[in-house]
Amino acid sequence: MKQFPINPSTLRINIHRLQSNIEELGSIGRNETNGLDRITFNEFDLEAREWFKHQLTSLQLPFKVDAAANIWTTLGTNSLLAPITMGSHLDTVPNGGKYDGALGVLIGLEILTTLIESNIETTHPISLVSFSAEEPNPFNLSTFGSRVVTGRLKKQDIEYVQTSSGIPLQTALASVGGSIERIETAQVSPQAIAAFLEVHIEQGKRLINKGIPIGIVTAITGIYREEITFIGDANHAGTTLMTERNDALVAASKFVVAFEEILRLDRADEVVGTIGQFVISPGASNIIPSEVKLLMEVRGDTKERIRKTVAQLDQTLRELFEHQPIKIHRKIILDQAPAQMDQDVINTFVYSVPPDETYLLLGSMAGHDTAHLSSITKAGMLFVPSIDGKSHCPEENSTIEDIEKVANVLLQAILKLDHDL
Amino acid sequence: MKQFPINPSTLRINIHRLQSNIEELGSIGRNETNGLDRITFNEFDLEAREWFKHQLTSLQLPFKVDAAANIWTTLGTNSLLAPITMGSHLDTVPNGGKYDGALGVLIGLEILTTLIESNIETTHPISLVSFSAEEPNPFNLSTFGSRVVTGRLKKQDIEYVQTSSGIPLQTALASVGGSIERIETAQVSPQAIAAFLEVHIEQGKRLINKGIPIGIVTAITGIYREEITFIGDANHAGTTLMTERNDALVAASKFVVAFEEILRLDRADEVVGTIGQFVISPGASNIIPSEVKLLMEVRGDTKERIRKTVAQLDQTLRELFEHQPIKIHRKIILDQAPAQMDQDVINTFVYSVPPDETYLLLGSMAGHDTAHLSSITKAGMLFVPSIDGKSHCPEENSTIEDIEKVANVLLQAILKLDHDL
Repeated sequence: MKQFPINPSTLRINIHRLQSNIEELGSIGRNETNGLDRITFNEFDLEAREWFKHQLTSLQLPFKVDAAANIWTTLGTNSLLAPITMGSHLDTVPNGGKYDGALGVLIGLEILTTLIESNIETTHPISLVSFSAEEPNPFNLSTFGSRVVTGRLKKQDIEYVQTSSGIPLQTALASVGGSIERIETAQVSPQAIAAFLEVHIEQGKRLINKGIPIGIVTAITGIYREEITFIGDANHAGTTLMTERNDALVAASKFVVAFEEILRLDRADEVVGTIGQFVISPGASNIIPSEVKLLMEVRGDTKERIRKTVAQLDQTLRELFEHQPIKIHRKIILDQAPAQMDQDVINTFVYSVPPDETYLLLGSMAGHDTAHLSSITKAGMLFVPSIDGKSHCPEENSTIEDIEKVANVLLQAILKLDHDL
Repeated sequence: MKQFPINPSTLRINIHRLQSNIEELGSIGRNETNGLDRITFNEFDLEAREWFKHQLTSLQLPFKVDAAANIWTTLGTNSLLAPITMGSHLDTVPNGGKYDGALGVLIGLEILTTLIESNIETTHPISLVSFSAEEPNPFNLSTFGSRVVTGRLKKQDIEYVQTSSGIPLQTALASVGGSIERIETAQVSPQAIAAFLEVHIEQGKRLINKGIPIGIVTAITGIYREEITFIGDANHAGTTLMTERNDALVAASKFVVAFEEILRLDRADEVVGTIGQFVISPGASNIIPSEVKLLMEVRGDTKERIRKTVAQLDQTLRELFEHQPIKIHRKIILDQAPAQMDQDVINTFVYSVPPDETYLLLGSMAGHDTAHLSSITKAGMLFVPSIDGKSHCPEENSTIEDIEKVANVLLQAILKLDHDL
């Protein structure tokens, strides 16, 4: 750090300005049920992008839109050091809330504003990015922007992508200033970012249930998905005796019950499992189901926890169906390893929590852009408690007091990292 | 009975002629997988109807097509006595077999032929009917013909019926000689039929497993259907702890498993239950299911058995979910009472079984035209064993020896009823 006109350890963000921005951005794309419809590259997403660029222009901050339509801005001109970067996203799920994603961008904006108005010049440039298309979207490409930036999505992966209604990604991306032709110019090298930090709402109840205002993320969940098909025999629902049946629904239901029991055994609350898709065939009231195809998902903070759960499932399937006529096909759909957060960043966050405040170290059970950034730089995340654990809905909410506390931890952490890195 | 040129108790049908007719009719509507596609009022159903009418014409038997397009023929002219009537149906499910329905019509035809060639004149006229649209069909009107005949379907129930692709029942019915305008002229009074007898394949494994060639039906199953909706809470599949969930799929699966256990308690094999429709919402891999809507069916040979099973289900639902946040909505969709077969007809069938043969008294777990006929006349059914219990598929099969035995029981039963009634 160079020179401080004020003592940096006393620097605080302006919560009133931040709150005002939350409300202003939170009105863009609002529908009649108070949910937000800022779906990837739709008109409201565009409006939010324009609003954000307008804020940057007002602060006389230069910005660039890369080929993935991510919006980048940087405070500071020291070209010898890579920037410390903050970021999150502005898009929402359909009928989503005003905090998921937007909060991380707005806290970044507030920190830049605070630094500017305090005349604090950091050693590292401090940059901020709003990533494109973080949420599940019509192009089936969640965390699109951060995957392009980290080289995890290449031109060949996306050049023919379109929505189910036939809108090419190419067209939609061009409408917000991106380009599939140039997509790989958006990739950044590990040398180009000194550290990446994201604030996000927790979307769960661990912080709120414990009454702790600050969450420091240790890892972002791994996600393991299997498609499991149970194949029995279709038969007449009247004339086939109970003892003569090979009912795919009964078999799949036994598995669902056992799956739930296994997942409830994890007392650390760091592994969860869900069966969210479940389709039976032929689906007639008078025919015994011959097939159930389900999608099983396990999330956990470490590879070991996920592996252990899957091993228990293997054993359960064997025990339940070893001597049964049911056939079972299993196909691994996704096996995404957990992303560990950088220990130096975690330590910096801990150091930046005021002595009279409490914090919780916890895994993130939702995926985030930071999971990808962690593959190229020192990465870390802070969580703000979610009231009732709700997210992806109009009721998504956090208290302004918690938001202020977390934003100030991030501000102090950036100043400390600027010193330490 | 009047005079017998031969001793009627020695009269037997001609199994070779019957077998030849089974094969000939079984080639009409045959598809490339050897299944039959004689779906209600389609071109193959029409072809089968024409084939049947041609057989009657060859025997110089008069026939009439009523307003429901049922085809009736009668042997004998005694107008003082109501006929003893045999019947079944010629239509099939898509990709069905050559015995379901057709066998009952062809055995009736063979019995009429046997009576004619033996110069046996019965006291009662002996009639035969081929009912329209017995199988589940595109008009959603199974047992259509027998319901019209017994007054259970009226003009107002069917005048606006059409297929999902918009073909009016009126048009289809007219193409086979029926008429919705005149539909109620097809209803017959209880005085107009002295008894109704149907041979059908069992479609189950009770006869085949016991090695018994002749089934005498005591009752046709009652069918009880409930739509049950389990309503939980949709939530993020990652961030919602296992203990915080209200998962509709887990609740519904527990119910499916308990339902199966309850049904397996019935050692008499006279009650079965199936959950054949099961739809979850929202059906995304990363969202905890908020709703499962399922269709539960219970079939049994007596009202009491069905009631007892439903009472056990009530108790199970209470025990499983009394202290759970899950909401459960139940709606009765169908509560069709079992149809008892006439005791005199049952006794006549038993009497007509040769002393060296075995028979089994059993309930029919499938619905049949006879269930409706039993509301207006003395009704009874005989079952032929189904190999492997298969029906509604190309593999549907019965041995020619069993068919011959059952056909001769029906022939002898008709002669005895002709004497007794």
